[in-house]
Amino acid sequence: MFDFKYFTPTKVIFGKNTESRVAELINEFGGTKVLIHYGGGSVVRSGLLKRVTDTLDAAGINYVTLGGAVPNPHLGLVYEGIELCKKENVDFLLAVGGGSAIDSAKAIGYGVANEGDVWDYYDYKRTVTGCLPLGVILTIAATGSEMSDSSVITKEEGLVKRGYSSDFGRPKFAIMNPELTMTLPDYQTACGCTDIMMHTMERYFTNGGNMEITDALAEGLLRTVKRNAVILRDDPKNYDARAEVMWAGSLAHNGLTGCGNDGGDWMTHKLEHELGGLYDVAHGAGLAAIWGSWARYVYKNCLPRFKKFAINVMDVEAKGTDEEIALKGIEAMEDFYRSINMPTNLRELGVKATEEDLVTMAHKCAVGVGGEMGSARLLREEDMLEIFKMSM
Amino acid sequence: MFDFKYFTPTKVIFGKNTESRVAELINEFGGTKVLIHYGGGSVVRSGLLKRVTDTLDAAGINYVTLGGAVPNPHLGLVYEGIELCKKENVDFLLAVGGGSAIDSAKAIGYGVANEGDVWDYYDYKRTVTGCLPLGVILTIAATGSEMSDSSVITKEEGLVKRGYSSDFGRPKFAIMNPELTMTLPDYQTACGCTDIMMHTMERYFTNGGNMEITDALAEGLLRTVKRNAVILRDDPKNYDARAEVMWAGSLAHNGLTGCGNDGGDWMTHKLEHELGGLYDVAHGAGLAAIWGSWARYVYKNCLPRFKKFAINVMDVEAKGTDEEIALKGIEAMEDFYRSINMPTNLRELGVKATEEDLVTMAHKCAVGVGGEMGSARLLREEDMLEIFKMSM
Repeated sequence: MFDFKYFTPTKVIFGKNTESRVAELINEFGGTKVLIHYGGGSVVRSGLLKRVTDTLDAAGINYVTLGGAVPNPHLGLVYEGIELCKKENVDFLLAVGGGSAIDSAKAIGYGVANEGDVWDYYDYKRTVTGCLPLGVILTIAATGSEMSDSSVITKEEGLVKRGYSSDFGRPKFAIMNPELTMTLPDYQTACGCTDIMMHTMERYFTNGGNMEITDALAEGLLRTVKRNAVILRDDPKNYDARAEVMWAGSLAHNGLTGCGNDGGDWMTHKLEHELGGLYDVAHGAGLAAIWGSWARYVYKNCLPRFKKFAINVMDVEAKGTDEEIALKGIEAMEDFYRSINMPTNLRELGVKATEEDLVTMAHKCAVGVGGEMGSARLLREEDMLEIFKMSM
Repeated sequence: MFDFKYFTPTKVIFGKNTESRVAELINEFGGTKVLIHYGGGSVVRSGLLKRVTDTLDAAGINYVTLGGAVPNPHLGLVYEGIELCKKENVDFLLAVGGGSAIDSAKAIGYGVANEGDVWDYYDYKRTVTGCLPLGVILTIAATGSEMSDSSVITKEEGLVKRGYSSDFGRPKFAIMNPELTMTLPDYQTACGCTDIMMHTMERYFTNGGNMEITDALAEGLLRTVKRNAVILRDDPKNYDARAEVMWAGSLAHNGLTGCGNDGGDWMTHKLEHELGGLYDVAHGAGLAAIWGSWARYVYKNCLPRFKKFAINVMDVEAKGTDEEIALKGIEAMEDFYRSINMPTNLRELGVKATEEDLVTMAHKCAVGVGGEMGSARLLREEDMLEIFKMSM
């Protein structure tokens, strides 16, 4: 068991119509001039943005707006947001949307509260000493950014995708109304469920100092999302299932399911980042496409965890050798992915990769992680290439 | 499913020797003059208090000390602490100990940050608008006060025991070193495990809007404490078991295991409060002594939850009628209490109550809850009396 820090200061307001409380919450955290940051047109089309600005108008809170945060949010828009905040004397950020808007807002917050180029942080050259306070109205259950310390930004030049983590970036509040997620396309809902589960699975498959209570919470969370992802496939407007998945999304990535271990494996995420860099794929689908190959490549090095996962999460009968049980767990997870129309390899993901592409991705991935990484099994460039090959 | 708020801002620093970081944490939260508040002589005898003051001395942080917080901490000491803080211009509170020192420190914090008599809050006459910032070095895993919003204070005159809850009272940081709990007497360790489980069981046995993920987390937590309480009975110095129980204690009462339900039942706690008022009994032991009778009195009104508890927490086979399964779960819980030397009735608790005592307690309990209370089953004075009689 490892020592750990646990810090989740975000005030969560969860339930129907909770977005109506946004002005009250901004007041509580001292915001007087707000930048409302959002993504594409869906928050406009749905009327959510209008409802938010009406609420701020009624409360006499000034604001400016900045849309355009795209999946894998771009550094250029971050710079634009920083300039806008400085020009307008913004003292509070409100992200309305999913992980893209939130991550982009965190970067804007770092840029306003710290001198110099904000990319320095994502380039691991400096450390932030603060962040403009940030609130969230969540519309997509997936990345967990609404409670997490992390944000991922892509520099357009060379398509460099980098993550930065700091407790300063944790949102002050997160408004979570499951109804706001009901209009998501089915594919995106399934991608979200995959991402949520993966945030906890990355922490679960480790060889370092696991904790019994953390495992129990992680397994309970995974079982919940697995069951409710299938409910949402058939009944996308099911409020309770939306709520289970939404709350799981926050708990999966706020640190709770990693307390006491070595920080997790995270290689599935790293491998998927390269996929996302080279092809236009949804993050969740990319994770599903790569996980099975990663799991088959590493499970013998992390057998007790894969066995436990098979039995406690995938309901595999505890019969046969440990290896047999572990493999049945991996197969059951792939069956689950297929059941919610997620891919289990690159072909199903719609990616036609050449051998050269695989070599490029493995090389970039190895460089990105500083040569080697992984807790379930330490992977080097040749291992990464092998996993990409297996995922074809 | 009910809407909910979730707010756990406490920064947890968990692991060996973490108390050495106390000065750094006080600095982080802006403390310059500290009141160190503790209970009996154990933190003195163990050398912990000396280590803490040495650390503050080395960091140049000024402090005053106030010991004497007793189980069911007294209002008189709270007044004394408030005076001392005002006289010494204290701007930060550090509680070193268990729930008594922390609860007492919260009350001192309310008294310093608000005008008027602090008892007004515990007497439900006014609401606090702030609290002096508070940090904790935890030495007993039990009450969960290190992350919770609640504190319980006893007014000496008439022995009036009252709880008050406010987010302002949530500690800024909690230092949790499982090693500090290793010297606890076995009985107190078992009482702590009972209290921890009960905080989650009070939230679990409801008829109002349960949430699947909350249940899964609650059941995982209960299984973990149940298993590790038995380990600690036989091996009190087991670090991992101490850590599992300590972290469970915080999660059991910080709100996590109640998200989405109606707030919980809490009648076992209310009934025990009367026991604690009339007899000198440990809170955890009192809870164990009353729970079985409460459960047998209410289970038919909350059958799905008792069945789920039996199967998912107590490993009862899902065979027979729902009532049979539920009863087996209650019996298994009582067996567990006995296995860690906790009482399952008043006789085993060492209490010789007269019929008149029971009538008095039931009456005081009914008055205390405003006539009736309970989610598993709504209880009135005659029900409370019946449960006390069953627990003889």
